[in-house]
Amino acid sequence: MTFSALALQAADAVQADRLEARLRGLARFGARSDGGVDRQALTPEEFAARRWLVEPFARKAGYVVGIDDAANVFVRRAGTEPNAPAVLTGSHADTQPAGGWLDGAFGVGAGLEVFDALDAAGVCTTRPIEVVVWTNEEGCRFSPGLMGSNSFADPSRWPALGAVTDSAGIRFADACAAARADFHAAADAGAWALHHFGPARPLHAYVEAHIEQGPVLEAARQQVGCVHTIQGVRWFELQFQGRSAHAGTTPSEARDDAMVKAVRAAHAVLAIAEAKGDPQLRLTIGRFEAWPASINTIAREVRFTIDLRHPDPRVLDAVQAALQDAWQAQEGEARLLLEQAPVPFDARLHAMTIAACEQLNLTHQPMLSGAFHDAMPLAACTPTVMLFAPSKAGLSHNPAEDTAIDDLTACTRALALCITQLALEA
Amino acid sequence: MTFSALALQAADAVQADRLEARLRGLARFGARSDGGVDRQALTPEEFAARRWLVEPFARKAGYVVGIDDAANVFVRRAGTEPNAPAVLTGSHADTQPAGGWLDGAFGVGAGLEVFDALDAAGVCTTRPIEVVVWTNEEGCRFSPGLMGSNSFADPSRWPALGAVTDSAGIRFADACAAARADFHAAADAGAWALHHFGPARPLHAYVEAHIEQGPVLEAARQQVGCVHTIQGVRWFELQFQGRSAHAGTTPSEARDDAMVKAVRAAHAVLAIAEAKGDPQLRLTIGRFEAWPASINTIAREVRFTIDLRHPDPRVLDAVQAALQDAWQAQEGEARLLLEQAPVPFDARLHAMTIAACEQLNLTHQPMLSGAFHDAMPLAACTPTVMLFAPSKAGLSHNPAEDTAIDDLTACTRALALCITQLALEA
Repeated sequence: MTFSALALQAADAVQADRLEARLRGLARFGARSDGGVDRQALTPEEFAARRWLVEPFARKAGYVVGIDDAANVFVRRAGTEPNAPAVLTGSHADTQPAGGWLDGAFGVGAGLEVFDALDAAGVCTTRPIEVVVWTNEEGCRFSPGLMGSNSFADPSRWPALGAVTDSAGIRFADACAAARADFHAAADAGAWALHHFGPARPLHAYVEAHIEQGPVLEAARQQVGCVHTIQGVRWFELQFQGRSAHAGTTPSEARDDAMVKAVRAAHAVLAIAEAKGDPQLRLTIGRFEAWPASINTIAREVRFTIDLRHPDPRVLDAVQAALQDAWQAQEGEARLLLEQAPVPFDARLHAMTIAACEQLNLTHQPMLSGAFHDAMPLAACTPTVMLFAPSKAGLSHNPAEDTAIDDLTACTRALALCITQLALEA
Repeated sequence: MTFSALALQAADAVQADRLEARLRGLARFGARSDGGVDRQALTPEEFAARRWLVEPFARKAGYVVGIDDAANVFVRRAGTEPNAPAVLTGSHADTQPAGGWLDGAFGVGAGLEVFDALDAAGVCTTRPIEVVVWTNEEGCRFSPGLMGSNSFADPSRWPALGAVTDSAGIRFADACAAARADFHAAADAGAWALHHFGPARPLHAYVEAHIEQGPVLEAARQQVGCVHTIQGVRWFELQFQGRSAHAGTTPSEARDDAMVKAVRAAHAVLAIAEAKGDPQLRLTIGRFEAWPASINTIAREVRFTIDLRHPDPRVLDAVQAALQDAWQAQEGEARLLLEQAPVPFDARLHAMTIAACEQLNLTHQPMLSGAFHDAMPLAACTPTVMLFAPSKAGLSHNPAEDTAIDDLTACTRALALCITQLALEA
């Protein structure tokens, strides 16, 4: 495909030092002494971070800012067709308790850097472009995550999500109201105008930049990942029953040992995954526990979990059927704890991200997202795609999380090219 | 072999109702509402239980009672050769927190019933017979167990054992001193004479009656188990290291999953035990735990335990070598937590227990002890043997622990025959 000259100007105007300064500045809010970041959703640190991010634009001609019911914060750069559905980009500003400086922050910082690049290049787009800071993506303070983006994409979920409480008993809806009050107070103090941003608005597209949080791009020495799918996931908890008895006095033939069943089932489960030889299949046994957990007592109960992921729901079904045979052969009973279907992104946008990387001479590859992102609920209501920057050593949710500034800049240039091109579309 | 007429008279004088009354009486001390018993070592309940057991004999002609440094309580029935090494029987009075009414209690009650039977039959033996109540067999309040019998058999261990503290910081030596003070106060109040019973005295034999705590005798429909060996045991803790990473974003080839190693090793360990096809081999994996124990995080560390038992140390060595190969193939590292060599009992005494059952027309079989008993340290200093009564459903360390009174009586008769015969020996 051919990108417009204006979109290329925007990509060329992306500046590494400006991008880095914004990301370093954001990392001061909730900074940990070990170099990581602890910035929980809707806390004073996150309020301050979000105000700091949007204030420069709130006072700038051509921009409006606002906050919605779920405390998602939006910055809109006007287009020549003010009523045309906007191109949306962004990510989240909350972190894990021992989080890094880039998870979420990069996508927000990259979007705002595109604004600065557009302004520096003097580019005027047809459609508005918006940068969003989604609320409570991580799900640490309020569980589950993705609350802001889910509330936006499907407002019918807002009452149930708003009723969720944190460990102190604070309702998500009340914490959002406090965030809105804080934002309004900041607007009053700074004499900004506040724009109303409603949920479920028609959008032209959603493009989210994020760090990979895995080792694939680094291992392949690629600058940008062009994400075509968020893989599906199913979580199971397996339970095996036996009869507790003395390890010394109970002969083999008199035993009903839950551990023997569980170990055989777990071994079969791992063997099934390995035998598939499918590099896209990911199977993890993360928890494994026995009761009464005594060295010299035969286990009366053993449980373990399975985290199963693949981008193709038919493969998930087939693997699940094989796993079921394996655990049922050992009298295991399963509970499905979570089921999330794979989310394929928009094919045209995915092709555009690849074309953008080729246009900008950035090494790149099509890839899966192994983790969930705000792009998941967005994909249900607008054409959506994601761009990944490589994670050093694949680390994330870790104070050591890092990405080379050159790689962050490359990804931001591809983002600028795509969203400017999209915002120039009729 | 031929039993003396006096020994047969003693066995015939054993009374089921008297035995049951003593055992039911003992079960009142520390009784649980669910029918079980919680009588921890050297607590007021256990002091009271031991006083209640010995008081009838402390006031009786021909008997003396006493307590040693480790708070082991002895009752001696005089022989015609007062200085001849005694025949010792007995067991312990402490229980598991959710224990039953017979574990330990039966061996003490059976010994005292033999005294009553000897008295009723008017039998006078050459050697003294002693009944002992060993201290802290279970190892619940003070760890490890068998403290009283180990202190008796090897007094050089007393200083180290005495220094062990319970969860409240109380030293075993201080708890023993309190038990001795309680016992002396009871003697003063009751005007008993207290006899000095030193440790490591020469003994003629030690014969302990105990419930089986396993299902073997019940399944074989035998009244008495003639125990020839306490099997050896080795406890291992296996540790597997990996690298924690996101279950969704980390492809198989980039994983170092401690769970995969541990499951493969555990599976191989169980397969080795099964392939041996040796009914005397007992292998148990009782604990299995992963860190960080998160459904969607690859395990950085997994540990599990192995309890390995067999009566033949050469078999233990061979199986251990095979297990080592299996866990080392998965990069497992092992810690040996406990090693207890098999304890073979005295062949002449074992033959005597079988002859006693035949003489009394009791169904019986030679068998192993799967669990530890006070007879283990005693075997190092005097000819030792054990007699087992069947456990209903193999249950022990459980409030539902039970044995038919007829079976307890049968075992006590065999005990009476053996210890009287031994006490009649020159």
